Amino acid sequence: MQAVVKAEYLKTFFDSVATLVAESRLYFGENGIKAVAVDGANVAMVIAEIPRESMEAYSVDVPRAIGVDFERVNKILKTVGSESVEIAVRDSFTVRGKGMEYSIALIDPSALRKEPNEPNLSFAVKVTMGARDFRNAVLAVDKIARDVILRADSSSFYVEGKGDTDRISIAFGAKDLLEFTPAEARSMYDLEYVKSFCRISGAGDLLTLQFGSKYPARFSFKLCADRVRVDYILAPKIETYEE
Amino acid sequence: MQAVVKAEYLKTFFDSVATLVAESRLYFGENGIKAVAVDGANVAMVIAEIPRESMEAYSVDVPRAIGVDFERVNKILKTVGSESVEIAVRDSFTVRGKGMEYSIALIDPSALRKEPNEPNLSFAVKVTMGARDFRNAVLAVDKIARDVILRADSSSFYVEGKGDTDRISIAFGAKDLLEFTPAEARSMYDLEYVKSFCRISGAGDLLTLQFGSKYPARFSFKLCADRVRVDYILAPKIETYEE
Amino acid sequence: MQAVVKAEYLKTFFDSVATLVAESRLYFGENGIKAVAVDGANVAMVIAEIPRESMEAYSVDVPRAIGVDFERVNKILKTVGSESVEIAVRDSFTVRGKGMEYSIALIDPSALRKEPNEPNLSFAVKVTMGARDFRNAVLAVDKIARDVILRADSSSFYVEGKGDTDRISIAFGAKDLLEFTPAEARSMYDLEYVKSFCRISGAGDLLTLQFGSKYPARFSFKLCADRVRVDYILAPKIETYEE
Repeated sequence: MQAVVKAEYLKTFFDSVATLVAESRLYFGENGIKAVAVDGANVAMVIAEIPRESMEAYSVDVPRAIGVDFERVNKILKTVGSESVEIAVRDSFTVRGKGMEYSIALIDPSALRKEPNEPNLSFAVKVTMGARDFRNAVLAVDKIARDVILRADSSSFYVEGKGDTDRISIAFGAKDLLEFTPAEARSMYDLEYVKSFCRISGAGDLLTLQFGSKYPARFSFKLCADRVRVDYILAPKIETYEE
Repeated sequence: MQAVVKAEYLKTFFDSVATLVAESRLYFGENGIKAVAVDGANVAMVIAEIPRESMEAYSVDVPRAIGVDFERVNKILKTVGSESVEIAVRDSFTVRGKGMEYSIALIDPSALRKEPNEPNLSFAVKVTMGARDFRNAVLAVDKIARDVILRADSSSFYVEGKGDTDRISIAFGAKDLLEFTPAEARSMYDLEYVKSFCRISGAGDLLTLQFGSKYPARFSFKLCADRVRVDYILAPKIETYEE
Repeated sequence: MQAVVKAEYLKTFFDSVATLVAESRLYFGENGIKAVAVDGANVAMVIAEIPRESMEAYSVDVPRAIGVDFERVNKILKTVGSESVEIAVRDSFTVRGKGMEYSIALIDPSALRKEPNEPNLSFAVKVTMGARDFRNAVLAVDKIARDVILRADSSSFYVEGKGDTDRISIAFGAKDLLEFTPAEARSMYDLEYVKSFCRISGAGDLLTLQFGSKYPARFSFKLCADRVRVDYILAPKIETYEE
């Protein structure tokens, strides 16, 4: 298996998985490179993909899954410039950049957590917006709260939080959103997860967010001008305190 | 009570108080918004003000004092952009920005420290200079000392410090100062306080500094192009060691 | 003894020594200012020099050695702008900048570690390259390893590292190097030292690197457009593990 791909795409791909799990399976399929993983606490799932069309070269004889330490590869990719890099799998997983050669031992996939199945979900609300706008709202909530509440009604989508004595609500109306399926819905999520999801997006990236009442949320990022796709599915938290 | 004011002014106002105390009284008077507070150690007092003229809108029926957690409001204001925000007081203290609504419970003013009286002081020395020039001198002293000595003689104003084996003196002559009342004076102050006062000023802001020998100092900042005024009064420290 | 020298040169000189030892001898000789010191662990030596020609003014009656706390002087120099500064030695070591006067007590040179002799070394490999290129390679190795391996063969110079499960190699061929004496050689060095050496170089600075197999390395930096020269000699580490 061999591929040539822009360093930026590979960085984004590895970073998006490493933010959730250190080690994961990595699939080389006919349609491109993919990783699916669930975090240790079973709260969040990541589905990351570099489609074949996003790569400068891609050849795979037989579809194959290997185990890789995403965290270590991610660290090395951060030192690579903007050039294209070559990745290959033989006895080890190898990354080659300008003069640089990095290789890391494969992990036996059977030693990794069982591959999760993508859950079958049906969401009440769907919102598409600039990933940065969503991130800024999340960072404001982070100033006072440990959880974030996603809420929608017939007119707007809201990012909200509650501290001991204070509360914040950031509203996005139709004119702030690229797409909006209005519905009454409200669910609470762990802020640390949501913050880590937002971290991978850059200026201009789009986020499609789907959720329901006391229901999981799905964060679908189109990254690097849509060359890399990363979805996170996050379980809701139970609100134990009263409104 | 309601007001519309540039976020920058409000940020500066809240930041200047929060640097000294977490919770404080907040006055809505005929001439604008004001806070006066003394820190827990009784070493420093802050008097911060947004005059009515600095606001886009300001309406107050009856002058009123409320108790507010300046630290929490300050955190939220840091996430606000450069737009104007609306503040209001009813059951809670509310800040409204672009799409954002933040509200925090009021604190019973009687639960806060007794309102300090502004001391009646007469200073030997008065100096006006760029706040940044003063800050840079303070940061240089900070490299070797835990206290800062303010000193003046007939020709110059000095910011000085002493370490165990070294000493530093930064002199400002008449040509470096916008205003200077020459006099012989020398007093020592806690560097941490002076550093935190300097932190709130930006490029172009002016500082008028008044002090005397073994006497308090008054730091008067004209901030945001003179739309916000913040004064700090700081008690001197006793020099227990010999020159 | 008195000298006038660009603050930048003095900063670089003091910084390059302070990175290795807190206190050191400082020589004022006919040809300029010099410091030679060995670190506490006896692993690295620094030889730093500002030649007479790099200074705007330099007068020394009798060559002289004093003891100075390089760490404290270094801290103060960081607060100085880009102007020229005057240094002088009388009862104390004095630095004078724009309005600023700093003085620090001398240390009796006999209280300092005995002056090391520069070892007589003969190196198999000599490489000259941009200091930044070398630093970037070292920082990449730092992501996975605690030691750095310098290696050369007939065609290239390599900066390499090994983690528990991974390895990285950054190759510099003839076209990446300004000077290259090819030879077969390989030696391992403590990464923390090498990183601290690299820290002092800026954009455009050149590094000449000499080493041998299981042999010390010499890092010769031409800094500030060759106005300041800093050499580090670093002992190799013994590789206890197998390739």
